[in-house]
Amino acid sequence: MTHTDLAPLRPEDPHLEDDDHAALGEDYALTAAFVEKVVDAADDGDGMRLRGLLEDLHPADVADLMGFLTAEHRSVVVQWLPPELLAESLPEMDDGIREKVLERVPSATLAEALQELDSDDAASVVEDLEDDQRERVLAAMPEVERAAIESSLGYAEDSAGRLMQREFMAAPQFWNVGDTIDHVRAQGDDLPELFFDIYVVDPMNRPVGGVAISRMLRSPRATPLIELMEPVNAIEVDVDQEEVAYIFEKYHLISAPVVDTGGRLVGQLTVDDVVNIIQEENREDILRLAGVADEDRSSSVFEIVRGRVPWLGINLFTAMLGASVIALFEGTIQQIVALAVLMPIVSAIGGNAGTQALTVTVRALATRELNASNALRTFWREMAVGLANGFVLAPLIGLAAGFWFQDWRIGAVIGAAMILNLLVAASVGVLTPLTLSKLKFDPAVSSAVFVTATTDFFGFLIFLGLATIVLL
Amino acid sequence: MTHTDLAPLRPEDPHLEDDDHAALGEDYALTAAFVEKVVDAADDGDGMRLRGLLEDLHPADVADLMGFLTAEHRSVVVQWLPPELLAESLPEMDDGIREKVLERVPSATLAEALQELDSDDAASVVEDLEDDQRERVLAAMPEVERAAIESSLGYAEDSAGRLMQREFMAAPQFWNVGDTIDHVRAQGDDLPELFFDIYVVDPMNRPVGGVAISRMLRSPRATPLIELMEPVNAIEVDVDQEEVAYIFEKYHLISAPVVDTGGRLVGQLTVDDVVNIIQEENREDILRLAGVADEDRSSSVFEIVRGRVPWLGINLFTAMLGASVIALFEGTIQQIVALAVLMPIVSAIGGNAGTQALTVTVRALATRELNASNALRTFWREMAVGLANGFVLAPLIGLAAGFWFQDWRIGAVIGAAMILNLLVAASVGVLTPLTLSKLKFDPAVSSAVFVTATTDFFGFLIFLGLATIVLL
Repeated sequence: MTHTDLAPLRPEDPHLEDDDHAALGEDYALTAAFVEKVVDAADDGDGMRLRGLLEDLHPADVADLMGFLTAEHRSVVVQWLPPELLAESLPEMDDGIREKVLERVPSATLAEALQELDSDDAASVVEDLEDDQRERVLAAMPEVERAAIESSLGYAEDSAGRLMQREFMAAPQFWNVGDTIDHVRAQGDDLPELFFDIYVVDPMNRPVGGVAISRMLRSPRATPLIELMEPVNAIEVDVDQEEVAYIFEKYHLISAPVVDTGGRLVGQLTVDDVVNIIQEENREDILRLAGVADEDRSSSVFEIVRGRVPWLGINLFTAMLGASVIALFEGTIQQIVALAVLMPIVSAIGGNAGTQALTVTVRALATRELNASNALRTFWREMAVGLANGFVLAPLIGLAAGFWFQDWRIGAVIGAAMILNLLVAASVGVLTPLTLSKLKFDPAVSSAVFVTATTDFFGFLIFLGLATIVLL
Repeated sequence: MTHTDLAPLRPEDPHLEDDDHAALGEDYALTAAFVEKVVDAADDGDGMRLRGLLEDLHPADVADLMGFLTAEHRSVVVQWLPPELLAESLPEMDDGIREKVLERVPSATLAEALQELDSDDAASVVEDLEDDQRERVLAAMPEVERAAIESSLGYAEDSAGRLMQREFMAAPQFWNVGDTIDHVRAQGDDLPELFFDIYVVDPMNRPVGGVAISRMLRSPRATPLIELMEPVNAIEVDVDQEEVAYIFEKYHLISAPVVDTGGRLVGQLTVDDVVNIIQEENREDILRLAGVADEDRSSSVFEIVRGRVPWLGINLFTAMLGASVIALFEGTIQQIVALAVLMPIVSAIGGNAGTQALTVTVRALATRELNASNALRTFWREMAVGLANGFVLAPLIGLAAGFWFQDWRIGAVIGAAMILNLLVAASVGVLTPLTLSKLKFDPAVSSAVFVTATTDFFGFLIFLGLATIVLL
């Protein structure tokens, strides 16, 4: 996506205060009042009023607005959006919402609108189209733009090749600052709208270094670029977006050249794309830990249930395993009903402590703070934490249970079971994501359900087992 | 933090392969083998070998390395790090690790090292110092640098004022492209090392617009800046970092001017700082949902327990509330032990479904995808999802329980309880974070424990209550 300096509507804008419809609140998010105005205008079918509300919005705010609307209101709004604004807001939308908006846009309009966008943005829109619409749209575009989009779609989804922008500024090694500035002034139209680094390339078109344009600006015209140039992190077209985000974040990059397998410069990535990737990856991690598949505001109830219910189904199965442990001790429970009252406490605390250890481990793996060199240390640290948590909590629950049921042996049993189950929680909380990661699976997926299933299983087994030995 | 083009050690670097100690793996993260080499050299007290291993590292990799080392090894490594490299790596370290490293560095060395850094980076290091060390370090610095750091520390933590860089490039409204380039060439040293936008200011020093330097480069020398300039998002010094991140992300900004309460330009924020903020905020959200307070790799077991055990204590209390519900039905359980076997299934599924709804809601609030205009719709959608999940899962558990205990009435009771508890889960999963957010609390904090406590409580109550009515 291209960096843009387009001004958003700010709440301070006097024009807006006069009109009494400031779109953005103090926090730069669309206000509920503005969304309602749009909904009212859409309900009334008042196209002119809609256009008045919409035409000054920033594309990012248009995308945001779409997220707040129902499908019906969205289809009215799309009709009244100026085509250029629609085009610019498409790359900003959530995937699910974009898909639904695209269904409403005629292919010819879309083909024209896409030509206004940078190649990476246009490709990200086209990739979401249904096959027949995609063919119609591509057919209606000029040769050059179509070729650029088709070649972009030739790279794997979420790869650097798919994300990159084909426009960049490259200079041969023998140029100086003056040559470069003159070239930029002459060739301005073929360059990306905004760029931050100039890539110096050898005769084979392989990047050998980069010059930040602010650094170039500081130097006299006669300075050779190779004197100013610094090494660059060239990223290969097939590198995954998660890797790209990590490199940008770690080295504070603003842009980076993308090279083909032969090392030749074919595009560039800029930090604003990377910000989106980081948010996407974080969203995935947080939702996966909770057992939620990809869904957004535009997902139907059916789509949401299809994403979440398999998870609950697995949970149902693991809960039945836990129940079957309890069933082993039916005789014990029949004699001491207090155990049925207390057993969920042991499993609940175990589940929560396991989830704490799990979340910390998943996060450390995602940020690459955890690898083979500190895995063992991390494991023992979590075990120590589990033991310490146990020594804090066991006396509390032991005393409480002892008083409640007027039997200090019940207190001793639940205290001991708590400590043991917290050790189970610590070990399974660390080892589950580490093992998944070692096996090249996403450590966030299915970890939580496995951890709580284990702490339930052992929580019931340890508590009821100890009780059977000690109390009967 | 300043964008840097310094080259990291890449695995392909032939020099490194020869030396057989490539620091970075294919994934750009430090390899376990390299960390072990450092540990070995530190154990042997082999300073020259340590320096050889360290001196070519990128500051970000030095910071990373510190995270993988134990306190003892860290203190050896700090002694052998070249001072400039130490200074540059300090702003990259996790807060907890930086604190511990700083304890090892003499004040005079630190004062000298800090002068190499941009004002925002130097302030971020100084803010972590103990009071007496901070005084010694500031006293040993030249007047100008000290004043800049002290004024930065005058702004609230996590505010734009604290995060901003005091170096920026401003130009009066009457300058043209040529004037600006000449100024940059002449004044190069007072400007930030890298900059991306030139802020055009009025005579009161208030920003009236911005010119991306790539855009300026494209224009003839005689072009007035005001012709090229576009509106900018000026950020006030007291704006919170979360807000800053949202604005940068939404509008794809690379840099933004920071203004004081009088609207005068006092600094700038750049996107690479924002990437760090986004990661920090995401980290907070994901850890808070799991009930983990701030901790990192360098935290001691005691620090970790202090952060996690209060959470487990609250959970202990809520689990006892759940237990007291079960206690109400002791008589029922004594007659039908099957209920004790089955009741954790109802609460487990409720807890998981509630956590799903909660996580989706917390995420939507964090990304401002949820506000008053779609809150009600979100609530009803989650209720519909809860009901649909119930209609899928209830027959499964109903049949399983019916067969297991050879009593179709038990199957009917658990099926009905499951559906009702999934509705409880959906409503509490949405309403808890919405209410916390409305009351200006962080919706991620304490939500999870409240949601699972509620689904446990009602899960037991509904299941055992229905069972008492139907089965006895």
